[in-house]
Amino acid sequence: MQESPGFIRVSHVLMYDTFYAALLKIGFTPEKASVCSEVFTTNSLEGVYTHGVNRFTRFIDYIQRGFIDIHAEATRKHAAGCIEQWDGLLGPGIINAIKCTDQALVIAQQHGIGCVALANTNHWMRGGYYGWRAVEKGFVLISWTNTNANMPAWGAVDSKVGNNPLVIAVPYQPQPIVLDTAMSQYSYGSLDLYKLKNEKLPTPGGYDQEGNLTDDAHAILETRRVLPIGFWKGAGMSLLFDVLATILSAGLSTAEITKNPVEHSLSQIFIAFDLKKLSNFSTINQSIAQIIADFHQSTPIENGKKVRYPGERIESTKQENLKLGIPVSEKVWNEILNLSL
Amino acid sequence: MQESPGFIRVSHVLMYDTFYAALLKIGFTPEKASVCSEVFTTNSLEGVYTHGVNRFTRFIDYIQRGFIDIHAEATRKHAAGCIEQWDGLLGPGIINAIKCTDQALVIAQQHGIGCVALANTNHWMRGGYYGWRAVEKGFVLISWTNTNANMPAWGAVDSKVGNNPLVIAVPYQPQPIVLDTAMSQYSYGSLDLYKLKNEKLPTPGGYDQEGNLTDDAHAILETRRVLPIGFWKGAGMSLLFDVLATILSAGLSTAEITKNPVEHSLSQIFIAFDLKKLSNFSTINQSIAQIIADFHQSTPIENGKKVRYPGERIESTKQENLKLGIPVSEKVWNEILNLSL
Repeated sequence: MQESPGFIRVSHVLMYDTFYAALLKIGFTPEKASVCSEVFTTNSLEGVYTHGVNRFTRFIDYIQRGFIDIHAEATRKHAAGCIEQWDGLLGPGIINAIKCTDQALVIAQQHGIGCVALANTNHWMRGGYYGWRAVEKGFVLISWTNTNANMPAWGAVDSKVGNNPLVIAVPYQPQPIVLDTAMSQYSYGSLDLYKLKNEKLPTPGGYDQEGNLTDDAHAILETRRVLPIGFWKGAGMSLLFDVLATILSAGLSTAEITKNPVEHSLSQIFIAFDLKKLSNFSTINQSIAQIIADFHQSTPIENGKKVRYPGERIESTKQENLKLGIPVSEKVWNEILNLSL
Repeated sequence: MQESPGFIRVSHVLMYDTFYAALLKIGFTPEKASVCSEVFTTNSLEGVYTHGVNRFTRFIDYIQRGFIDIHAEATRKHAAGCIEQWDGLLGPGIINAIKCTDQALVIAQQHGIGCVALANTNHWMRGGYYGWRAVEKGFVLISWTNTNANMPAWGAVDSKVGNNPLVIAVPYQPQPIVLDTAMSQYSYGSLDLYKLKNEKLPTPGGYDQEGNLTDDAHAILETRRVLPIGFWKGAGMSLLFDVLATILSAGLSTAEITKNPVEHSLSQIFIAFDLKKLSNFSTINQSIAQIIADFHQSTPIENGKKVRYPGERIESTKQENLKLGIPVSEKVWNEILNLSL
């Protein structure tokens, strides 16, 4: 995706150091600067550029415009057994999401399941990061966030629902299964990339001015009528994720977030399952191995092109980017190097 | 859908009585015959014919062939805080699903969240039924089931994943929000109906022999390459739902279920949230009302055709069917009347 004219490769070490220096300069504590730099770098290293390096300048911009309070940190407002309501106090989304993921694991260790519902937080960048964090500690994570209104309801032309990404992560050796998917077929970040490279989308991704389904990112960016996954089905799921995030966290809904000048003060849900509590814990990896073995026996459409499960390709992307450097648009990288802090 | 030549209207009272008599005759206790008849009738009354009246003869067939044990009932195998593992003992899916939904509510009342993971059960017919049951008692329900392999993984031609329906139900006055959606764009039941009526699908629903996306139900029924919602996204979600249902319940996976001669011995998850435990309980209905008010302000594609949230149309369908009778294919109804029991 990021391999083409105008793109360079930046080592993960240089990328981390660049982020870290910028965050220190803008006033982060060394500890929080380190955490945020690590997440932005890991997301990029693992191929999720749209929610890694490509969003760093916007993160800085939101801090400078006062939408993100770099010193605020989520705190617990209310606890009721295995569900807790936290207030993100408009702190950095990454810091808040890590804290709430970790707290969901703590609750799950006690109750079997732990749920943290987080209000007033900011963009978590890549939801999958928190899924990987949970599975590395042996927990299942189901998590989602609401967003501003960026997708039409089914049967509508204007955006009233968010694309509300969902993460489902399951520990599995040798390679965890981590799904990280927005309820729109393509994120605006992806549409921008396809437009930039003047490439057709692999599948229809939204509607053009005439109301026809199209694979032309440019046309979709004009109408902003992005396609929900499964037409009315994804639009419906998205509404439900917003309703749940809002009521469980006592936070803002997509409708309320959209009244803000930029996307901030989001509501998020983190639900962890402690597999060690189950009667069949010792055989779980083997059960998953059987499922995956059968899955991998699928007959591919293209000869030799084996099917992959969610998260399976990440390790090879990471290894390639560790070796060759992380691909970044020269323009994006220069903007980061030239940030006025 | 069911309004055309060859279709008749049957009153819900007659339908219930017909089911009830058949179930008594096949050996059900009066109590369980009543529960199953009520669910089959309600599903039909509320417009989900494919998982109501249209499946009744198959339910009887599976009982007669010994796949469903009409006297078995789910029992708890293991409890760990707010998560419990139950064994369905191959009892009727409806009876087991009701019992496990109700138990999830009991656990949620104690812990805030309650999860019952159910192994060795049978088809629950319409998952939404259990969502409605939970919301009527004031609880959120998130629930899903695995199925046999009926959908290809992304990039594959043969079916290796299930369409694993997901239910998300949220209490809301005046009309609950209940999403009930398979991970395939159309169920085989729907494809059969479109084929029967020789109508095009409203959106692409799968692939034809040449590997092209098509809205021709007949062509899709030939290849059995049904479209996952959101292409790779729904195929990925479906795999994760199967993995979770299997490992949390210690039950059979889609791969294992598919080895059976018919679809039985399924794994299901029921997760309830007790909203009364939350700090903002008293304002939740109002929060949802704000979301729905904004949602309803969407600009419709077709003038005057207001957008609807999941479950919103059910009440009017129900009222119509209560008044006019439930539409049923004459052929289906005659098969039910002529069952050899």
